Amino acid sequence: MVEMVHRIQDIICDAIAHLDSSTFREDKWTREEGGGGRSRVFSGGHVFEKAGVNVSVVHGILSPEAALRMGGGNDLGSDNLDFFATGLSLVLHPHNPMAPTVHANYRYFERGDGLSDGSWWFGGGADLTPSYLFEDDAIHFHQVHKTVCDRHDIADYEAFKSWCDDYFHIKHRSERRGVGGVFFDDLRAESKEVCFAFVEDCASHFLDAYLPIIERRKDMEFTAQQKEWQQLRRGRYVEFNLVYDRGTKFGLTTNGRIESILMSLPLTSRWEYCHEVKSGTDEEKMLNVLRQPVDWLKR
Amino acid sequence: MVEMVHRIQDIICDAIAHLDSSTFREDKWTREEGGGGRSRVFSGGHVFEKAGVNVSVVHGILSPEAALRMGGGNDLGSDNLDFFATGLSLVLHPHNPMAPTVHANYRYFERGDGLSDGSWWFGGGADLTPSYLFEDDAIHFHQVHKTVCDRHDIADYEAFKSWCDDYFHIKHRSERRGVGGVFFDDLRAESKEVCFAFVEDCASHFLDAYLPIIERRKDMEFTAQQKEWQQLRRGRYVEFNLVYDRGTKFGLTTNGRIESILMSLPLTSRWEYCHEVKSGTDEEKMLNVLRQPVDWLKR
Repeated sequence: MVEMVHRIQDIICDAIAHLDSSTFREDKWTREEGGGGRSRVFSGGHVFEKAGVNVSVVHGILSPEAALRMGGGNDLGSDNLDFFATGLSLVLHPHNPMAPTVHANYRYFERGDGLSDGSWWFGGGADLTPSYLFEDDAIHFHQVHKTVCDRHDIADYEAFKSWCDDYFHIKHRSERRGVGGVFFDDLRAESKEVCFAFVEDCASHFLDAYLPIIERRKDMEFTAQQKEWQQLRRGRYVEFNLVYDRGTKFGLTTNGRIESILMSLPLTSRWEYCHEVKSGTDEEKMLNVLRQPVDWLKR
Repeated sequence: MVEMVHRIQDIICDAIAHLDSSTFREDKWTREEGGGGRSRVFSGGHVFEKAGVNVSVVHGILSPEAALRMGGGNDLGSDNLDFFATGLSLVLHPHNPMAPTVHANYRYFERGDGLSDGSWWFGGGADLTPSYLFEDDAIHFHQVHKTVCDRHDIADYEAFKSWCDDYFHIKHRSERRGVGGVFFDDLRAESKEVCFAFVEDCASHFLDAYLPIIERRKDMEFTAQQKEWQQLRRGRYVEFNLVYDRGTKFGLTTNGRIESILMSLPLTSRWEYCHEVKSGTDEEKMLNVLRQPVDWLKR
């Protein structure tokens, strides 16, 4: 898993750097309590306002608070607070409001011995956050992920798609963060090898899911008003990440590297009091989908 | 208290509307579970990017989660989850990066019968968040609050000043949100009348603390680079409010009016990966004070 996340980080960064004609800044960091990571970020690119692709390999002793926030290990109780975690996490925020933000994460956790049942698990997923809805984009993104899931007996696209909608839920707004994708956690069926094969397959197809979308949206024309709507949606992204995201909370309570954790935040965002979208507009069309998730592959 | 917060809301809104040559939009709202409020907000004014002055009077039954997040009532256990709360909350974000953001809150809570000891308490305070440090502003703001505290036996400026520094602490950044002010909670000494007299005195002197500062900063010249630094500091403001602020969390878990709770967020904000301030600059001078709070009245 450690080898895989580094290899996929290289592949994804090469593709994104090429697309953007930009170079990632790389920061290698270590964590006092054990482990470290390799963060790659650039901002103010040609296509992306901000792009971050991070890997980390950390270990130590969980606080009981952090243990509660993990996706698995629930049957271990409050003993066995030793942990090992590795993963890749990426967020790409394009400039163009017609081009969606994307987030992906592939991770492996161990608590305690990492051998007995319940002491190891995988998690991950990818989700798409447009400011303007292009149904073709949502369908393509979901289709790539369904195709990967269908190759693995332990993966259930329908369940992982619903889990994604449930997870990226900004409860206080009654909105989802975006048009979803897949999300899974506490994955520990069959064997580590079987689970790993699925997670590696997901990570290996991230670019297939996103590149065609960004290619066709990055140079579209847009108005100042559309850019402002994107900024308001960026504000919602910030709300989700700071109020609900488990990865962010986990990082903030385990003395993670703050700049790597918060690289997921957009470069700029906006909050307008009581903003309302007009009936029949593209903004309303987007909001309707965020309020009522769609089964993109069943339409 | 209910009468007072409405009266002070009128006084503060009149002064701010006059200063800004703007008109507040007023929204009266009700809450399904009981009570409601009167929110007054404008954005894009002449002086203020966003200004919100809200009052609310709500009652109902607390969730155990919300009860834990309250400032008082800790000795009531998990019984007596009936509550009554009223307060005034304001946030003013000026355009000019030389002019500080200010926040104030004056509140009264009851849990259970509201008569027995520990079933009622007051809280409140005011704090100043500059992007650029003007020591005179910090000293003036603190001096006004110390003068108010000194008139009341139950108020301890030194303790409330430290409490403010502790409360507005962005732990993951090891920074305070601003140059502080006063913060107090679970105030229930002597009698309701005695506590109310102090809180009313604070609220009545908010404008004395802030108006002279905004008057002398609102028209100062500034550069695009200084405006960008302000935007980064706004990002930190968002981080504090969404990750730590008890009032925000309380609102989000008690089905409060979202737009009124989140009116505290700035109109725009910015996050730059690994932003660093240069040695010897005004930005560094500001950060040093945020990292190591100053006793403004003892210098």
